[in-house]
Amino acid sequence: MMAAEYKQIMDLAIVHRRYFHQNPELSGQEFETARYIKKHLQELNIEILDYEEPSVVGYLKGTDGKSTLALRADMDALPVMEEGDKSYRSQIPGVSHACGHDGHMAILLTAAKWLSENRHEVRPNIVFIFQSSEEMSPSGADSLIKQGVLDGVDAIFGIHLWQPLQKGKMGIRSGAMMASVDDFCITIKGKGGHGALPHETIDPIYVSSQIIGALQSIISRRVNPLDPAVISIGKIESGTSYNIIPEEASMYGAVRALSNETRNLIGKEMKNVVEGICSSLGASGRIDMFGGLPPVINEKVMTHFAEEMIETAFGADVLVETEPVMASEDFSCYLEQQKGAFIFVGMGGEKSQYPHHHPMFDIDEDVIPAAITLLKKIALEFD
Amino acid sequence: MMAAEYKQIMDLAIVHRRYFHQNPELSGQEFETARYIKKHLQELNIEILDYEEPSVVGYLKGTDGKSTLALRADMDALPVMEEGDKSYRSQIPGVSHACGHDGHMAILLTAAKWLSENRHEVRPNIVFIFQSSEEMSPSGADSLIKQGVLDGVDAIFGIHLWQPLQKGKMGIRSGAMMASVDDFCITIKGKGGHGALPHETIDPIYVSSQIIGALQSIISRRVNPLDPAVISIGKIESGTSYNIIPEEASMYGAVRALSNETRNLIGKEMKNVVEGICSSLGASGRIDMFGGLPPVINEKVMTHFAEEMIETAFGADVLVETEPVMASEDFSCYLEQQKGAFIFVGMGGEKSQYPHHHPMFDIDEDVIPAAITLLKKIALEFD
Amino acid sequence: MMAAEYKQIMDLAIVHRRYFHQNPELSGQEFETARYIKKHLQELNIEILDYEEPSVVGYLKGTDGKSTLALRADMDALPVMEEGDKSYRSQIPGVSHACGHDGHMAILLTAAKWLSENRHEVRPNIVFIFQSSEEMSPSGADSLIKQGVLDGVDAIFGIHLWQPLQKGKMGIRSGAMMASVDDFCITIKGKGGHGALPHETIDPIYVSSQIIGALQSIISRRVNPLDPAVISIGKIESGTSYNIIPEEASMYGAVRALSNETRNLIGKEMKNVVEGICSSLGASGRIDMFGGLPPVINEKVMTHFAEEMIETAFGADVLVETEPVMASEDFSCYLEQQKGAFIFVGMGGEKSQYPHHHPMFDIDEDVIPAAITLLKKIALEFD
Amino acid sequence: MMAAEYKQIMDLAIVHRRYFHQNPELSGQEFETARYIKKHLQELNIEILDYEEPSVVGYLKGTDGKSTLALRADMDALPVMEEGDKSYRSQIPGVSHACGHDGHMAILLTAAKWLSENRHEVRPNIVFIFQSSEEMSPSGADSLIKQGVLDGVDAIFGIHLWQPLQKGKMGIRSGAMMASVDDFCITIKGKGGHGALPHETIDPIYVSSQIIGALQSIISRRVNPLDPAVISIGKIESGTSYNIIPEEASMYGAVRALSNETRNLIGKEMKNVVEGICSSLGASGRIDMFGGLPPVINEKVMTHFAEEMIETAFGADVLVETEPVMASEDFSCYLEQQKGAFIFVGMGGEKSQYPHHHPMFDIDEDVIPAAITLLKKIALEFD
Repeated sequence: MMAAEYKQIMDLAIVHRRYFHQNPELSGQEFETARYIKKHLQELNIEILDYEEPSVVGYLKGTDGKSTLALRADMDALPVMEEGDKSYRSQIPGVSHACGHDGHMAILLTAAKWLSENRHEVRPNIVFIFQSSEEMSPSGADSLIKQGVLDGVDAIFGIHLWQPLQKGKMGIRSGAMMASVDDFCITIKGKGGHGALPHETIDPIYVSSQIIGALQSIISRRVNPLDPAVISIGKIESGTSYNIIPEEASMYGAVRALSNETRNLIGKEMKNVVEGICSSLGASGRIDMFGGLPPVINEKVMTHFAEEMIETAFGADVLVETEPVMASEDFSCYLEQQKGAFIFVGMGGEKSQYPHHHPMFDIDEDVIPAAITLLKKIALEFD
Repeated sequence: MMAAEYKQIMDLAIVHRRYFHQNPELSGQEFETARYIKKHLQELNIEILDYEEPSVVGYLKGTDGKSTLALRADMDALPVMEEGDKSYRSQIPGVSHACGHDGHMAILLTAAKWLSENRHEVRPNIVFIFQSSEEMSPSGADSLIKQGVLDGVDAIFGIHLWQPLQKGKMGIRSGAMMASVDDFCITIKGKGGHGALPHETIDPIYVSSQIIGALQSIISRRVNPLDPAVISIGKIESGTSYNIIPEEASMYGAVRALSNETRNLIGKEMKNVVEGICSSLGASGRIDMFGGLPPVINEKVMTHFAEEMIETAFGADVLVETEPVMASEDFSCYLEQQKGAFIFVGMGGEKSQYPHHHPMFDIDEDVIPAAITLLKKIALEFD
Repeated sequence: MMAAEYKQIMDLAIVHRRYFHQNPELSGQEFETARYIKKHLQELNIEILDYEEPSVVGYLKGTDGKSTLALRADMDALPVMEEGDKSYRSQIPGVSHACGHDGHMAILLTAAKWLSENRHEVRPNIVFIFQSSEEMSPSGADSLIKQGVLDGVDAIFGIHLWQPLQKGKMGIRSGAMMASVDDFCITIKGKGGHGALPHETIDPIYVSSQIIGALQSIISRRVNPLDPAVISIGKIESGTSYNIIPEEASMYGAVRALSNETRNLIGKEMKNVVEGICSSLGASGRIDMFGGLPPVINEKVMTHFAEEMIETAFGADVLVETEPVMASEDFSCYLEQQKGAFIFVGMGGEKSQYPHHHPMFDIDEDVIPAAITLLKKIALEFD
Repeated sequence: MMAAEYKQIMDLAIVHRRYFHQNPELSGQEFETARYIKKHLQELNIEILDYEEPSVVGYLKGTDGKSTLALRADMDALPVMEEGDKSYRSQIPGVSHACGHDGHMAILLTAAKWLSENRHEVRPNIVFIFQSSEEMSPSGADSLIKQGVLDGVDAIFGIHLWQPLQKGKMGIRSGAMMASVDDFCITIKGKGGHGALPHETIDPIYVSSQIIGALQSIISRRVNPLDPAVISIGKIESGTSYNIIPEEASMYGAVRALSNETRNLIGKEMKNVVEGICSSLGASGRIDMFGGLPPVINEKVMTHFAEEMIETAFGADVLVETEPVMASEDFSCYLEQQKGAFIFVGMGGEKSQYPHHHPMFDIDEDVIPAAITLLKKIALEFD
């Protein structure tokens, strides 16, 4: 790319990004965002495939067309009140792009422009997936897959601008890179009554306390210590007053793991704990798990391909084998169905100091061009 | 008492009782109830002493006046929606006399009428205490005592219509008869954060679970097994979502004991548990205890006197030495300051089948005359 | 009794008592003790009935003989090394009468002498039960009952010299006076393995810790707070080294309660706890209970009779209604089958300062004559 | 190496190995083993340096001598009764080379022979470390280091024949490869007493159960889920009988982690748990940690060098990046002081089916030549 062209691309990407940033929309409600993307893709002569809004899927036929490559960006903002005084701050109170999806869309839209304008060089067909609702259940990825977005696709790649990774680095690893997540709700049914007469009740608060204790032992005793996993309870509620033992208690939390084996093991063990402890104390209980995402597991060959692209484009110093993280991504749904890889684009540094989801979070726009370059390179070299 | 007089008294007591029942008022808000009582006491030429409303204190000078006797009834109703279809049901939605205080007032008011009309026979001065707010903190007894209601009083007696005791019996015991109660709130301060990163947080929900467990051991290991006590947690709340480890957790409950030694011991041990467990897990915590009532401890000589009155008036078969109960009563505040005794008037049977505080609770009006007789007898024989 | 006779009786009782004290024998091994007793009973022309040694049962026919009264003393010493320098100290190293059974035998043997010598005054038949093995399982009382010792007996009385009760008092209460006791063993079967690989094991030590915690809640939540009960674990053992997770864990303890309902409830709840917690954590477990004694429950009419005897013989000041105690006695086995009562003879004071079973424990011999008098009085007045 | 030479080496190594296997000696007692090694080294004209027996350190001066390389084998057998019917089985009942150290010594001794016989080709000085007591505390590595065995050494390498790794593979990884281990003993001091009177005691068994529970939360809540760690309690003991609450309880276990940060964090948190929980329940407690080994952390450059040696000697297919394991090795002590790397030589397969330390464990002698070749290659290429 020439310097002038680079600058033009850069400028355009920033324009897109700031538009998205100023007009954030919550998960499943990205309709204006979708309209903006669709308009720009149509201007690029990229075909819009027929998928449920607000996701938008574009299609560019390759010169060769023997293989098909999908590139994915996510679209949703978060219910976070942005802080700080940037000129392009969110215009929607209480909603902001505090995770960087604005950058992802700008990168993919700008890469689409370049690929469209240079389509004679692009051998594979390219599917541009702008996906709604990454942050929330139901997962937008899951929905698109059910609609067939991966039909005929040979591989899929996605990136995440990543604050914990230093600016100037790109991180990837073969195998598990991000955790599964399964929300759960545990409900304990005891028997309410007067606080002065505990023996006439089954105290669901005490039962809950025993369950919370025993859940720790699933991590400490049942899971292979080399296989990272977390069970966190984020909320507990039971009762209304000092003197009345309540009928029920509820606990809400999430399980995370880096392998489906561990994920399934934990599910099974939690059920045992809830049922066994309830039985031991005369209560009844149940656990419901829902909204699950598998771990992000990068396929080996595609990971190797992406590593080569990074090394070739930016040098060996840029490539790092990232450690797995316990955060989750519904990109995992694509990788459960098809080959591909997910890549962290580092941006940690002076311009991006706050963690994802923080009210002061911001992306470092300087890393956008390299991300665009990476997607272009993947598209041009994929075979 | 002649049959005719008996019938008249009975009829009047029922009228009073049903008025109170139909017009229940919550603790501290018994202003209409107070107006009704005051009006009737004034009609009886009983002097109204100057105490804060809605409590009402009447005074009848005795012929001798060397000693002063207090008789007490409590006035407040409960936030309980009455069920059943009695003709005189509560006219205030969600409020009812589900503990029987309507009966207590009717009994004391009717006894006052008889004593006033027969004041030439009454040697001691009589203080009629109609006390607000027995059910709730702050205690009406405590408030009246601070205003001086026991000044110059030599002994105090009170009764409770008691459903767990069979109709036809009156129960009393020397020493501890009802439990102390102390409400508490335990607050755990941890460190909030993302559910995927427990090591960057201090999880107050886990800390709470350990505390709930350890509190059981105060009852099972620290308290003399022969000294009844209860710690019940009625409410726990922490957190707002599946995925965020909260900053704090709160637990609300009550402690009950039959002796002040055990009551104090438990308070001390709970503080140890909260502080020690918090310290063991990197959190900080506090326990606040408030609204406390001492146990109801009947004084020996006055108990013996009351037993004699019961035996003399109704026969030895009526008197029972009741087992202590874990319920509480702010009558204990009077007994902490002055001699006296609290008496259960049995009414359990076909006409009173439901426990106190139950939506279907009702008193058996048949036992009212005997209760009035008992108060009269105590007033006449007290020396 | 004349002063001279009194002195003679006293002297004889002391001789007996010191013989027993110097020659203590452990539970089930009281053969020399038995020989001594038998010899003296035979000298008194008291018939020796045919029961398994080392228990000794004597029989005195009454003048009237319409009713039969049993009086019981227990015979066994304890595996306690006596401390202190009394002249009559135990001659058996590591064994001593640290509970006072030496006194009980001396009292009953001396009472037998008086009753035999004055048999013309004794209307009921008297069965003198010198019972082996009160301290240990199997219970000597249980064994004698199975052999028929209560056949034809109308009532049974026993006394215990009681250090916690002040010298000069005799204590008794109708209903539950001493606790039941049931020893138990809980065995947890997990799966052993290397300490570095907990996920390949089922850790029986962790499972045990959860069970110990949950057992506390049986006392604190399942048992009526007014119904005293204790679960104590006295011993836990599992594992052999730092680095190997063991296959099994064992816990040994005892349950005590003052009613059979609570005793049975606790047994059922413990089974639930063991099985439920094991199931919750993938282990298997069992609880075995054995060696049980019921609570000592004094029959109402016989208690009243004993109270009268005490009042008549020593005055109302001597009689106290004792609080129940959590200690146990196999006298309960007799009371489960037949009317009767158990009586504490107070001896606490300067001469008896140490608790039962303490190496420095000693009885106060001064109280022996009154105990003899009480047994005589019971025998003479029983009808 | 020629085929004939290879066969000769192989034969010799097997002779050595089987000698060691038949004559196993426990940690710190490898005196006959040491005599055997010393004799053979002396025959090879390898200088024996002066270190405390039973460790044996040989020294071969290099042609260049600018750098010094240490190669280490461990010597001790285990208190495991060997099972199976191999011809060369252990002749010492209850002791066997169930971990493969016999192979390690044979490999190093045979490599020493080749290097000695070809010393004109060997540029660096070589220190041959035959180290006592790898399995037990005190660590033989630690002892040798304190005696100065690493003085002047530039790098150190060691291998472990590794059953979990498939035969035909060699595994290594940069950074943490094996876990730290720290044995600990937790002692709880309560207050003993009668099981019927828990309130007069401080129950150390209950306190222990709370501590065991809370220790789980260190793994589940305090340690980064991506940072593997284990706390295992292998032994608990307290008490002697059903009915006596004991004075003390003791727990023995081990902590493992893959980083010194986590290792230190866990130590600190365990202290908090023990002290906080004891304080919460009125007991006192202490934790003693001892016999600690740091994690095996391979140095980056030396790991890369070893990887190159493996690839060059055996091909890229042989080299695997091994996952870390939670087992420990006192080779970590050398790596804490000096550059170097530890290498797993895979032997899992038909001839080696049982895990290390198992009574049926055996090494697959077929892999010995490759291990010798690897050490030779390292010695020849090290610079």
